[in-house]
Amino acid sequence: MINVVLLGTGNVATHLFQAFSTSEEVVVIQVYNHSEASLLPFSEKTAVTTSLQELKEADIYLMALKDDIIVEIANKLQERNGLVVHTSGAVPLNALEKCRRSGIFYPLQTFSKDQPVDYSEIPFCLEAKIPDDLELLKDLASGISRNYYEVDSSQRKKLHLAAVFVCNFVNHLYTIGEDICRNNELPFEILQPLIKETAEKITRSSPKEVQTGPAKRGDNSTINAHLELIASPSDKDIYQLLTKAIKTSHGKKL
Amino acid sequence: MINVVLLGTGNVATHLFQAFSTSEEVVVIQVYNHSEASLLPFSEKTAVTTSLQELKEADIYLMALKDDIIVEIANKLQERNGLVVHTSGAVPLNALEKCRRSGIFYPLQTFSKDQPVDYSEIPFCLEAKIPDDLELLKDLASGISRNYYEVDSSQRKKLHLAAVFVCNFVNHLYTIGEDICRNNELPFEILQPLIKETAEKITRSSPKEVQTGPAKRGDNSTINAHLELIASPSDKDIYQLLTKAIKTSHGKKL
Repeated sequence: MINVVLLGTGNVATHLFQAFSTSEEVVVIQVYNHSEASLLPFSEKTAVTTSLQELKEADIYLMALKDDIIVEIANKLQERNGLVVHTSGAVPLNALEKCRRSGIFYPLQTFSKDQPVDYSEIPFCLEAKIPDDLELLKDLASGISRNYYEVDSSQRKKLHLAAVFVCNFVNHLYTIGEDICRNNELPFEILQPLIKETAEKITRSSPKEVQTGPAKRGDNSTINAHLELIASPSDKDIYQLLTKAIKTSHGKKL
Repeated sequence: MINVVLLGTGNVATHLFQAFSTSEEVVVIQVYNHSEASLLPFSEKTAVTTSLQELKEADIYLMALKDDIIVEIANKLQERNGLVVHTSGAVPLNALEKCRRSGIFYPLQTFSKDQPVDYSEIPFCLEAKIPDDLELLKDLASGISRNYYEVDSSQRKKLHLAAVFVCNFVNHLYTIGEDICRNNELPFEILQPLIKETAEKITRSSPKEVQTGPAKRGDNSTINAHLELIASPSDKDIYQLLTKAIKTSHGKKL
């Protein structure tokens, strides 16, 4: 059984707490936050504290905190015997250099409050200063997920960047699609099977191989007709830039 | 029973032929193409012809053809009693003005050869010159799908544009994600649960409401760190433009 003290009460902390509560190998023995109010949802299920001095002895101190306070909190845990770990995509392992034992437990997923998440599918990116601690993190991950990967800090930064492209930027393109529907009295539901199939296709084939559309075909008459239809200057810039990128990537004339 | 003559043998024609073959209300009595070789896969299952003069009498002449030959072929069918229909997102209904009875049967989906498609989920966008023919197209659609919508030519052009944003452009962002993985010795599979969840989230909430990431948070230190990591000028332009668009859309300082 792995004893965890969880630091933080935000989206990631809340989802991890829930996931661990269904695990037989992991128990969250305490949750820390500086604000008492945010601890309320956890206080019925485990011990809580607003004081770092009162943290219990644990196998792992899991910091699901904002990037800019991770180092400050980690430094206050440097005398602890347990493994000090954060869940951030962007903070490198050597930022925890004052801790004797340190590691990373980065879930590569988008979390929103009140949206349920299937933890068994989430890839956890693991890294540790000491080889034995990497094994401990694998045990922690396998308690809730079938997917975990050994990823070093340099790879993790790149993964975080890739996630911005395939998640945050993709979601903005969905927002543009929804706006077009709304402005033309069409339900957004009409686009959803296409969105779903586009996301599923790339699990069967490389995205470059299944690229479709007017830019891929070099169909300039459709491209020009589309540009005339777009009212928003920002959407028009996005259309032009992505069309150019797809044309270049597939060897079409600009 | 609706008798259909299918014109075309490409991706859309092939998938429609397959879908109709499982329907009890629709039968494809003939397939036309100008090239004999492309008819071969169909010739074991139904009648085929390379001559427009030899088309059988049918309830519907369904043209799953390239945009630039639709009008030419439709004009050659103008003496026919059956309903002349195309499957294009971009060609307006009045392009078929010489036909007494005309309509649109536009499946809003991305088709790749050798990729199976669940037809029951595909939204069909229907339009017809004559109200009775709209009913006929509804019967045709309901033979294979639970989703069909009455969509006029102006709305359909906008939908086609929206599809470019949420499918073609999204797929290019997936391609960038795959490139980042490949260049850093990471398997693309590691991004797939995130891609899937991003696509599923917008069926439960509006995409604008579930936007996440550094641009949404106005987190300029992460944004600048990402820009330093991007080697490709095209990817860097895309990062900057979409970051600016998300910031603007969510009221963050540029």
